[in-house]
Amino acid sequence: MKEKLTKALQALKQKTPLVHAITNVVTVNDCANSLLAVGASPAMCEAADEVFEFSQLAGSLYLNLGTLTKEQEMAAYLAIRGATLKGIPVILDPVACGAIPRKKATIERLGHFGRFTVIKGNLGEVKALAGLAARVRGVDSLDEGNDGLEACQSLARAYGCVVAATGKVDIVADGQRACLIENGTEMLTRITGAGCMAGALVAGFCGAYEDAFGATVAALLTMSLAGELAQETSGGELPGTFRAHLIDQLSLVDEALIEKRGRVQWL
Amino acid sequence: MKEKLTKALQALKQKTPLVHAITNVVTVNDCANSLLAVGASPAMCEAADEVFEFSQLAGSLYLNLGTLTKEQEMAAYLAIRGATLKGIPVILDPVACGAIPRKKATIERLGHFGRFTVIKGNLGEVKALAGLAARVRGVDSLDEGNDGLEACQSLARAYGCVVAATGKVDIVADGQRACLIENGTEMLTRITGAGCMAGALVAGFCGAYEDAFGATVAALLTMSLAGELAQETSGGELPGTFRAHLIDQLSLVDEALIEKRGRVQWL
Amino acid sequence: MKEKLTKALQALKQKTPLVHAITNVVTVNDCANSLLAVGASPAMCEAADEVFEFSQLAGSLYLNLGTLTKEQEMAAYLAIRGATLKGIPVILDPVACGAIPRKKATIERLGHFGRFTVIKGNLGEVKALAGLAARVRGVDSLDEGNDGLEACQSLARAYGCVVAATGKVDIVADGQRACLIENGTEMLTRITGAGCMAGALVAGFCGAYEDAFGATVAALLTMSLAGELAQETSGGELPGTFRAHLIDQLSLVDEALIEKRGRVQWL
Repeated sequence: MKEKLTKALQALKQKTPLVHAITNVVTVNDCANSLLAVGASPAMCEAADEVFEFSQLAGSLYLNLGTLTKEQEMAAYLAIRGATLKGIPVILDPVACGAIPRKKATIERLGHFGRFTVIKGNLGEVKALAGLAARVRGVDSLDEGNDGLEACQSLARAYGCVVAATGKVDIVADGQRACLIENGTEMLTRITGAGCMAGALVAGFCGAYEDAFGATVAALLTMSLAGELAQETSGGELPGTFRAHLIDQLSLVDEALIEKRGRVQWL
Repeated sequence: MKEKLTKALQALKQKTPLVHAITNVVTVNDCANSLLAVGASPAMCEAADEVFEFSQLAGSLYLNLGTLTKEQEMAAYLAIRGATLKGIPVILDPVACGAIPRKKATIERLGHFGRFTVIKGNLGEVKALAGLAARVRGVDSLDEGNDGLEACQSLARAYGCVVAATGKVDIVADGQRACLIENGTEMLTRITGAGCMAGALVAGFCGAYEDAFGATVAALLTMSLAGELAQETSGGELPGTFRAHLIDQLSLVDEALIEKRGRVQWL
Repeated sequence: MKEKLTKALQALKQKTPLVHAITNVVTVNDCANSLLAVGASPAMCEAADEVFEFSQLAGSLYLNLGTLTKEQEMAAYLAIRGATLKGIPVILDPVACGAIPRKKATIERLGHFGRFTVIKGNLGEVKALAGLAARVRGVDSLDEGNDGLEACQSLARAYGCVVAATGKVDIVADGQRACLIENGTEMLTRITGAGCMAGALVAGFCGAYEDAFGATVAALLTMSLAGELAQETSGGELPGTFRAHLIDQLSLVDEALIEKRGRVQWL
């Protein structure tokens, strides 16, 4: 399996996939810079008058519901339809779906317009979507239960897609396969946007590499490794400096690092 | 009084208050990162379909009118109503109310939907709201008059709330009390967002500490102290580096620093 | 000609022009910080209820179509009308006009409400607007053809304005004059926002210096020089650190640097 990860990274570097993103206003700049750092080409195209056609030109579609305006919501329906018609991967980041009923309603509606290739949330969001009781505070998950794998597998079966739940240990599952990613650092929770950047990277890798399960694991591992290195190079616990170094380190993750330092437990 | 400030900081660190923010697009990421740096939990929830319920779950509501879209304006009416019904503190940042008539009209309307706990603007904005002649340029105050205290007190009485005016010296007043904060650095005017971050921090402190006057002073002092230290650690007058260090230093402000370095003049 | 550039920079530093910006959500913070770094005063005022009056108070208007919401589109029509009525320079950044038909339609409509002083795009965008075949990928130009000068001159004649096309070599032309700017670094393509920041700077310089051709060259040269220096001070190819240093270096560009290091080829 591990060679899938290095192959996914190679594909990303070679193909410079165009990632069409409809995403939240808080971290949109971080998403663009993290995609550029790993070698993808971000395009935030969010107007209802633009997205149906644009989504059909892209390598993947990233839908992040964080600060979904009414106009973005309409655009999301059009974009997922366009992408699905062309078989382009769609990555859903169901931000705050455990705390805000409109998010869940929108996700259900989106499912009638197209299909998700990957759903990537924090554990609270994944559990909420899977219909399980979840502990959330605003956009944050307070959940560190050991029912995460089950929640991912159940949601993956329900939607016929890959599901990833981020947390201290990241979990990735599809109908058959599952794994745990044990890299990362708590510093990623001390800045805004790490979850969104991880979601954007999943879209980047899926736009370049066909196996969505492998692409998702490679993306989350890339994020976690960059976080570990950024913590080392930024000298500890300084969130402002850490954030700049995180983008630096995203640009430096390579196959050797994945081989040497990646701690993925295949289940 | 000074022990109120350290107590407010302690409360913030212990309670991780959820700050519901409806804020401008320019500095929304800075607001989120500054809240995270001091230990609060930001949630930018701005859709009219979401805010009435969400505002009732939060520790405080931060309304920043900087780039108020029509959808945000509608959301603001719903959110202040929700927060006020539950007795949750509401912090208003009346960005550009001296230069743009719609801002002032919106603020007056907001006052019919709920009440403000704190109004925090720059001196020009506070004077404009208090009905005094103000010198502004776009979003900036050109005012350094010595009628600032009077303006704050007058506005505080008019709205029955705490009023803070930022500038070379920050002024905080409510109906009875007033103080001047003499910390800070001119570098805070050389980046965008220092005013917004200060407003977001006021919301953070008010979400954790009941005395809104003390919470506001503690928040503005935290911002000013972090600015001073960031200028020292970033080696002077480099705005890009300063900005990253500002977030770093916000995460490091503690009770000892407030005790040692805070220059608050209680009137 | 070179003394025009130092004079434009002097004017900018002396006048602190107010730049009214309607711009995309991805890089709006970068635009504000880069304008502040060089000494201009940014104001992002984008609500249809606000812009007609506000545009008439500003030193220049920057219209960037990157993530144009419907509300921004309406605001853009009102703002260009207001600015044009007062003879205030209007700078158009036609982001993605080669890839998205709505952008081109909006630009044509804008031309009925007012006039452009400068159109600044990447080469692909300029060619698309000039009616030439352009190679684009999302928001990026893949074009490095040697018909750039011709495209700029043709578009400049069609709109009666200055046209700038950024790329490895930047090209600036109006009806009579033209030049090439040979400074810059590839690192500017490894972060998001360099093109937008350059456009914002053009608006800053045009708000302070009457000759729009000279102001545009000075702005693009300032950006390219800051990029070169930021690459040196940030130690190479680290996009997160580079980005912070870019803002630092923008604040340090001065007349001596332009004299010594600027490589402008006047045609």
